[in-house]
Amino acid sequence: MGRVTERRRVLRIRDGEAGHRADTLVAEEPLEIRLNGKALAITMRTPGDDFALAVGFLASEGVIGRADQIANIVYCAGATVDGANTYNIVDVRLAEGVTVPDITLERNVYTTSSCGLCGKASLDAVRTNALWKIDDTPPVRIGTDLLAVLPDRLRAAQQVFERTGGLHAAALFTADGEMVDVREDVGRHNAVDKLVGRALQQDLLPLSESILLVSGRASFELAQKAVMAGIPVLAAVSAPSSLAVDLAAESGLTLVGFLRGSSMNVYAGEHRIVLRTAADGG
Amino acid sequence: MGRVTERRRVLRIRDGEAGHRADTLVAEEPLEIRLNGKALAITMRTPGDDFALAVGFLASEGVIGRADQIANIVYCAGATVDGANTYNIVDVRLAEGVTVPDITLERNVYTTSSCGLCGKASLDAVRTNALWKIDDTPPVRIGTDLLAVLPDRLRAAQQVFERTGGLHAAALFTADGEMVDVREDVGRHNAVDKLVGRALQQDLLPLSESILLVSGRASFELAQKAVMAGIPVLAAVSAPSSLAVDLAAESGLTLVGFLRGSSMNVYAGEHRIVLRTAADGG
Repeated sequence: MGRVTERRRVLRIRDGEAGHRADTLVAEEPLEIRLNGKALAITMRTPGDDFALAVGFLASEGVIGRADQIANIVYCAGATVDGANTYNIVDVRLAEGVTVPDITLERNVYTTSSCGLCGKASLDAVRTNALWKIDDTPPVRIGTDLLAVLPDRLRAAQQVFERTGGLHAAALFTADGEMVDVREDVGRHNAVDKLVGRALQQDLLPLSESILLVSGRASFELAQKAVMAGIPVLAAVSAPSSLAVDLAAESGLTLVGFLRGSSMNVYAGEHRIVLRTAADGG
Repeated sequence: MGRVTERRRVLRIRDGEAGHRADTLVAEEPLEIRLNGKALAITMRTPGDDFALAVGFLASEGVIGRADQIANIVYCAGATVDGANTYNIVDVRLAEGVTVPDITLERNVYTTSSCGLCGKASLDAVRTNALWKIDDTPPVRIGTDLLAVLPDRLRAAQQVFERTGGLHAAALFTADGEMVDVREDVGRHNAVDKLVGRALQQDLLPLSESILLVSGRASFELAQKAVMAGIPVLAAVSAPSSLAVDLAAESGLTLVGFLRGSSMNVYAGEHRIVLRTAADGG
């Protein structure tokens, strides 16, 4: 619990000079996510916000979308030989009457293999599992001047990265650029799951007025998580992949990449982007 | 096949000026890895070197370690509705007499959950599955002056990154700093699997005289892949995680992080590192 960083002894070498010192590292531990007692997935994550991570993961899979669909969430105790709780297994129990989907690791694999496996199948799976479409009518409109300042706000809020250099960050902003929440994790998908899970626990899904900003690249998986949470705008500091762009275009998601100050590329959903410089006076 | 990059139309914004143009993106597509016809895993990867990726993945899991353990590798055709080959399903058939391990997605999950789940269990799993220890007797000795120049050599060899900015890279070097192979992929673990798979196909495992350099962070998963391939030195441009350091220390792997010119941190396996500046004349 709360082991976000750990200390290790390191040999530090700088221009031919070497010396030992203590170094702060980002903590990485496995987390097993169970649904009604059944193992669903294992992810390597930075401990902390584990319940939110599990909830966000289930939201990304289309299993739940509202807080009242969850009966309770617990750490599974007594799983080790000596009966200690490792705080690395989280079980989400669904509320009575909520359908437990036939979602298992096997099924995930066999479903895709039986219908062929291609980018198209991945896009179809998101559409099939989505609990809602991205619905921001009229569309959220975001000025490029506002987008330009978001990466600095994210960096200012990154607490652990400063110490370890080892974390991915993701943040939710309002359409006005106010930071609502920020999470850091050794895995970028975990950081987004934690954000979405915390929002779901407050019954804020779909996040139809939000901007999701990620510190690195925009993969298919991150675009999927944005779409599944009903987020209309995903911005990334680095490059998107082809399949992330395809999913964004198909889902009506605005996807911004290479967001670096006033420079950015809009790969899909241009209708939400308003060209505006800071000099315009807003 | 060979769809390493794809072109998409993008709205490019620079300081208030916007215009459409074509942009080159890194391709991302799902790959299903099968062992003797049974689905084992799905990974989102950049197409290309798919057989090597599958072989490297199996080596990382401790299933195979020699080329003659593989009977053949094929793309599964006819999996889609119209019978087309998507080139996204690879089946590795083991040679006669080679034990097909009871490795399935379910088993991976249930094994860990039954014995508790913690960093220690993850380390134990690597030790249990390893086909060999890191064996470089006498130890490979690497000068810091040699390590210092490797990131530049990696960058010089990164072909796709130049165009897309969207790829992780991994390279194998000899102990003399000669680049043996370099792979790029949208997923850093895939880049390493492709390297290890190509080496296994040439029967070069264990890679007991090699240095593995990765372009980003060093996670547990990457340290695991280095250990499973018998690689004695893993160097990363960015930070390692706590569990990566723990695995390195336990396995005798030399783990270097924040490798940036003549600055670097050695987190484990210092005995292979020789402090030497370029001015020493080697």
